[in-house]
This record gives sequence, C-alpha cells and structure tokens, in this order.
Amino acid sequence: MMEKIYLDNSATTAPCEQAVRAAEYAMTTCYGNPSSKHQLGTDAAGLVSAARKNVSSVLGCASEELFFTASGTTANNTAIFGAYEKLRRSGNRIVTTSVEHASVEEPLKRLEAAGVEVIRLRVGADGKIDENELFNAVTKDTILVSIMAVNNEVGAIEPTAAARRAVKRSGSRALVHVDAVQAFGKIDVRPSLCGADMISVSAHKIHGIKGVGALYIKKGTNIKPYVLGGGQENNMFSGTEAVPAIAAFGAAALESADAGQSLERLASLRDGFVSRLRAAGGFEINSPDDALPYIINISVTGCPSEPVINALSQAGVYISAGSACKKGHRSHVLTAMGISPERADCAVRISLSRSTTREELDFAFDELVKIKDRIKR
Amino acid sequence: MMEKIYLDNSATTAPCEQAVRAAEYAMTTCYGNPSSKHQLGTDAAGLVSAARKNVSSVLGCASEELFFTASGTTANNTAIFGAYEKLRRSGNRIVTTSVEHASVEEPLKRLEAAGVEVIRLRVGADGKIDENELFNAVTKDTILVSIMAVNNEVGAIEPTAAARRAVKRSGSRALVHVDAVQAFGKIDVRPSLCGADMISVSAHKIHGIKGVGALYIKKGTNIKPYVLGGGQENNMFSGTEAVPAIAAFGAAALESADAGQSLERLASLRDGFVSRLRAAGGFEINSPDDALPYIINISVTGCPSEPVINALSQAGVYISAGSACKKGHRSHVLTAMGISPERADCAVRISLSRSTTREELDFAFDELVKIKDRIKR
Repeated sequence: MMEKIYLDNSATTAPCEQAVRAAEYAMTTCYGNPSSKHQLGTDAAGLVSAARKNVSSVLGCASEELFFTASGTTANNTAIFGAYEKLRRSGNRIVTTSVEHASVEEPLKRLEAAGVEVIRLRVGADGKIDENELFNAVTKDTILVSIMAVNNEVGAIEPTAAARRAVKRSGSRALVHVDAVQAFGKIDVRPSLCGADMISVSAHKIHGIKGVGALYIKKGTNIKPYVLGGGQENNMFSGTEAVPAIAAFGAAALESADAGQSLERLASLRDGFVSRLRAAGGFEINSPDDALPYIINISVTGCPSEPVINALSQAGVYISAGSACKKGHRSHVLTAMGISPERADCAVRISLSRSTTREELDFAFDELVKIKDRIKR
Repeated sequence: MMEKIYLDNSATTAPCEQAVRAAEYAMTTCYGNPSSKHQLGTDAAGLVSAARKNVSSVLGCASEELFFTASGTTANNTAIFGAYEKLRRSGNRIVTTSVEHASVEEPLKRLEAAGVEVIRLRVGADGKIDENELFNAVTKDTILVSIMAVNNEVGAIEPTAAARRAVKRSGSRALVHVDAVQAFGKIDVRPSLCGADMISVSAHKIHGIKGVGALYIKKGTNIKPYVLGGGQENNMFSGTEAVPAIAAFGAAALESADAGQSLERLASLRDGFVSRLRAAGGFEINSPDDALPYIINISVTGCPSEPVINALSQAGVYISAGSACKKGHRSHVLTAMGISPERADCAVRISLSRSTTREELDFAFDELVKIKDRIKR
C-alpha cells in the first residue's frame, strides 16, 4: 500500500495519541455534564479544569484567563464582536491587516457594514505589515487592533508586539487581539510577549481534535459575551462544554511544550527543501525567508494549484492551495504581497508538523518535480 | 464496587458505542480538514455529509436544510440572532414562553435590551402555554416565535404546531423556531409536524458526544449567519467542522430511529415510579402527567435539592436539580408553573434514557425514600 505523506498541517493535524486517549476517556468513562453536581458531573468538570490548566500554561496565562470556545473561528468572533460591544461608544475605528484569516475578516466586514471604519494595513513582499504604518493607523478613537501572529497561507510572522506600543502611543482605549491559531504551540505567543489583551488559539492545529478552540482574555478586560445561554466558560461561551475535545486539547497542548526544538529542526528541513526547489527551477517561493518554517508556500510556475494538488494526492502527498478554508478564490494574501495573479493561481501550501521528516519532504519534492514536468508537457 | 445509576440523561447522555467508534475513526483515520481538496480532506467531508444525511433523515428534513453547529446553544443563538437580523425591519415583536432554556432566554434578553418587545407567554400548572394566549400574542409586527418542544426541567410538551397557525393568522412574516434539544430522537419533531422554520437539536442528549448540535433551517428562509469566517456549513456556521463529534452525531441519530418503542416502555416505567412515590408520601410530582416520560421532576418535601443530589450521588445515583445549566438559581420553570418557592427549592430532576431499567428506578426510589427520612430526621 502507498504511504501517505501528510503535508497539510496548517489545515489540520493528525490528533496525537495522548489527545485521542483523553477524548476516549471523556467519551466512555467521564461522560457527565460538567454543570451537574453529582460525581460524574464533577469528574467531567475536573477534566475541563485540568485541560484549562494545561492549555493556559503552554500559552503563558492564568487558568481563569482562558475560555474554551468551539474553534479558532468562534474565538475570533467572540473577541471581535465582544470588544466592539464593549468599546463602541469609545470610538469607531478598528485597525487590522489585509492578510487576516476569514474568521477575522468576515466579522470586521460586518462591523464595517454597520458603520465602523476598518483600516486594513497593507503588507510588503515579505507578507509583513510596516510598523510605522501601524503607528499611524492607530488613532485616539481606535477601539480594536487585530493582527494575526502567523499568516496561515505563507507563514509570515507579524510584529504583534508593535500593536500594544501603537495603542499606548495613541492614548486610545483600544484592545489588542492576536489571532494565534497558526502560531500557538509553535512559537512563543504568551500575552506578555505579544502584548495582546485577547489571543485566539485552536486545538486541531496542534494535534488536538476538531471542535474546540480557546480565547485568552486578559484579566479585567470584560468584553461582552457573544454566544449566550447557560453561562458556561464563566459566561464567555455558553453551551455544554465539548469535554472530549477539551480534554484532548489539554493533552495535545502538553505535547507541544517543547516546540522550540521542533522549530529549529523544521527550519533546517524547510531550508533544504526550498534550496532544492530553487535549484530545480520552475518554482517560485512565496513564503518569506524568515517565515515560520511550518509553512512553505510556493508556486509551480505555469501549473494551476488544483491539478498539482490532485496529482500529489494521487501520489499520496497531501497539500493545500493557500488556505483550506477559502474555496476557489484567488489568495488575498498573495495578492496583498504583490504577487501576480498568474503566480498566485499556481500557489500551493506545504505545511509541516513536528513529526515531518526529511524523507517525506524529499518524496514530496520528487513528486512536485515530476508533476511540474508532466503538467507542463 | 458500587453500581452507578445514571439518571441525569437530560443533562447529558453516555455516548453509545456506535458514536464512540465513529468519533475514533474520525480522530485516528479520517482526520483531514473537510475543506482540503486531497483524499484525506474529501474523506473527512464524506463523513460530515453522511452524518448530515443521518441526522436530517431522523429529523425529517432534507440534508441541505441541516447545519451543524457547536451545540444546541449555538443553534439557538444562530436561529434567534439570525432571524432578528433578517426581519428587524419587518417588525419589533418576538413571542416566546416563560419556560425556555437559557440559550433562548439570554439571546432574547439581549434583543430586549436593544429595544425589541419580547412577549413571554405564561404557562399553566401543567407547564404548557395556552394556545389562545399564543394566538393573541402573535401580531402583525411579530418577527419571531420561539417555543421549545419539550421543557428541559419538567418534560412538558409544548403545542409548537400552534405557533405556525398563529403566525398564519396574524399575517406577519414571523419565523417559527423550535428548540427541540430535549425532544429530538425521542418524539417526532419533523418540521412538517411542528410547523417550524428552524429547529435546534443537540447530539449529546441522544448518546452522541458533547461539542456538536444542529440547526434545521427551512429551504429559502435565508437567516443571517451569526458565526462568521471560512463559510463552512454553507456559511451558516463557520469554523473547521468538528468531524469526530459530527460523525458521532450521525451514528447516534441512527440509533435513536426507533424512539417510539422506548417512549412506550419509559412511559410505563415513569408511571410505576411516580405511583410508588405518591404511595410513599412526602414527595410532590412537578412534571405534568402527560410530560415526556424521559423527565420526572419531583420535590422531596422539606428537603432542599442539593443535599438530596449529594446523598444520591454518594449512593451511586446521579440526578440533577431542575437544569444542569442553571447554577444555584430557583427554577424559573417551576416558578412559572405556580409552584411555591419552598417546593421549588426541593425539586430534583430524574431523567431517563432509552436504556434505563425498572431495576435502576427501583434502586433510585429506595434511596430517595431513605434519604428523605434521613434528611428530615
């Protein structure tokens, strides 16, 4: 049987064994409702509380500052709409980037339609915003600055810490939100470092399971809740807790604790892979040199993304076009980076995990070269 | 070791074997992102699509009318805020009941604070609204009628079908929403029968796993989405699909397909249990005689809920006060039914599942009698 080479880890990761076991325990043994007062209920509440401790310790915040949500998307929605409802009377401007994920961009579009001024900072060829432009954009009447930590399509690492400085300088009451879905468990995004009041993370990008994310909210921030009901998650995300996915998140977070080592190893793998592509010719590298090494965005010159992805899939190599979530649209990220439409339409994203090996990348390289030659002919 | 008798099934149920297996398969084998175009992605999309088929066929709607959400709560939030955004220019009145779950009541409270007139129909001693009052309440400028199918605390079955008739008579554009979280998989709540444009259901109340619900939206209704992002679930609930929980939901829904048989058996168990309590004396039955037999709400005269629940838990019998989600408040449902504060404070909910046996209820009865005598002494 053909080996599978999974290089779509920025879309989602394979759950680690510890995460699967934690979910199984929650499904089969500890299945109570965490709000129930009997033993099975308090046991389930204990699982949630242990997971909260694990995830918050990896993120670098206090347990009571971490709120489980259904996904990175619901975390982003909660942060943006919650900050807006809190501060809408303090100003009317939101500053973000032109390369955010749809779960930030779409909520902001809705606020824009409601009359909020949304400033989308452009990025350079390296995918990064310019700090000076950020400083100029954040004015006294800014209520929110939302900047992703790592771009999901190209891996560009944004200068999130500058957002806090910009807010300070402006004298505004703006909150700083960082979408760290692609960064968490890979690089350090602790609040004190990235300067955020709110940070969104997701379990299934770090070998947890799909169906849970979390929002860090700095103590005392008091944004308004977005999903309302029974008051779970200290009223920040109502609905019976997704205990199996939450328990798995806690287990997966612990496993990502030594992310620094992976980063070094993957940077070396990435550099080798990119060098071979450059040497082979017929490929263009869209990710900046200093991108997070987990994400390698390239264009196969003259070969549209879809046939490349399909041919690789048939060879057992699984990758995506820019983002798994944006179906059939030209990448707004590559466009913002000034990449031509022709090149953007030929872009694919190879995304690694801490378990990716040199052999896997070598195999993917060989297949990419074969496919390029075949499609061109 | 002491046997566990789980009688808190309206709070949450033990996942059935088929659901656990489906979740495991999604976690370990079929872990792709359903939006990814490679084989692992399309396999995951296939799981979601199969689950949608299963759940919608049990609910009695078309696959494309069913949208997975994170929970019954997010389904209710999506329905209420989505209907409001669609129709806010057509009128300013919402009609509901005084006994709704917090995930309906809290969104309505927020709309009320924004200026919407919310009419909460009172209920009789049987927990049910009066159809005539419903007809009078639904006026030409009503935009939404939201009525639960089965009350989560006492099991009262509300006349949801009357809502559709009331809307027709009023000549309003109002949408009808039915929170069927406690009804789905137990009694028939198909749209054609309950007359709803939107129906909320939840997996973990029918032996699926926590972390997924669904909202039926009648074709052509076009409410506005509430959680925004990558456009998953045909744009009605963005965020990477919770594939393990969704697959488990599909499996669990199939297992609930012969709910009619359980209903008859449980009605007989419930009647026997209630008769014994009545004969024993010192108990008051809060559930109406014609309640859904899955839910038996009683008051242990003179014994506050908490010590009763704790003592039963120590004996291995797990039950809740009125609702697992409302911590420490006196039940608004029992209050609305005209039950005295003293009696309401002594209320507990015994909630059955299709696997509950007569022996389990007999054991619970014996323990209840012992505890009552002990606490009173």
